[in-house]
Amino acid sequence: MNKQAFQDYYPEELSHCYGCGKNNHEGHQLKSFWQHLDQQNLRASTTVARCTPNEKYTAIPGFVYGGMIASLIDCHGTGSASAMAYLFQDREIGSLPAMRFVTGALNVSFLAPTPQGVELTLVGQFSEVKERKIIVDITLSANDVICAKGQVIAVLMPDSMVPK
Amino acid sequence: MNKQAFQDYYPEELSHCYGCGKNNHEGHQLKSFWQHLDQQNLRASTTVARCTPNEKYTAIPGFVYGGMIASLIDCHGTGSASAMAYLFQDREIGSLPAMRFVTGALNVSFLAPTPQGVELTLVGQFSEVKERKIIVDITLSANDVICAKGQVIAVLMPDSMVPK
Repeated sequence: MNKQAFQDYYPEELSHCYGCGKNNHEGHQLKSFWQHLDQQNLRASTTVARCTPNEKYTAIPGFVYGGMIASLIDCHGTGSASAMAYLFQDREIGSLPAMRFVTGALNVSFLAPTPQGVELTLVGQFSEVKERKIIVDITLSANDVICAKGQVIAVLMPDSMVPK
Repeated sequence: MNKQAFQDYYPEELSHCYGCGKNNHEGHQLKSFWQHLDQQNLRASTTVARCTPNEKYTAIPGFVYGGMIASLIDCHGTGSASAMAYLFQDREIGSLPAMRFVTGALNVSFLAPTPQGVELTLVGQFSEVKERKIIVDITLSANDVICAKGQVIAVLMPDSMVPK
């Protein structure tokens, strides 16, 4: 399977996101991949990303802060949406014009405190796939315990946001 | 009106949050205050916080990234909940045992791209106030335009999260 992350296919000028942009050297640089790819039934495909947050992203000492968890879910959602959009339109990932997604709505339920110093695993599933709107349901786990669940309603980036 | 922020009353050991902890020198150190305080009708009270995000918290160049917006809404929500909890129980803010709130659920709708280099204003209202659960509805504005709306379901921090 291709080892390049979804976010690595974003155009250079759209790769500055603090959560997942390869050109943001202070950010998280989250990398999302296919976990399971079902070409016959796209919605049965799943995506995965892994990340061990820096200790500064504290809530209470020992636990990851909610904003970090929300950020990871957000960026894994929009990344997964972009990859799915290319599949859905039977286009090669990264081909131009770029299909970059932004978040219309982000919902996160915090189910258990998320421990620090542990690799977090985000798994994404697709509950809706349309040309301009993709809904990604995400679990975030630490040590095989689901600490948070999230939903990202991702919409195709409007032209007004593309840097000139 | 008291100029000390809600978060400044958090106990030292609970002041490391990347979003709002005064002891986290790399974080946002968000500060929340009463905007309008109605002692006769607590739910009519509103809270406010202001923040100009550092440029590194980019989504697309020129716009603040969603994780930052979610973080600000989250921390303004839990801070507002803590302050309201003291009022609701007719206790002096900051008195022990501390009433620190954590987020059970966070929902954010992104209504418009949030510009960088502009002071953001968060205003919180209370849609539910109970002893252990407080719901805060928040708007985030830039240049008087609402860019995001959020809801924080805040719950009293469980003892298991208090550092020993």
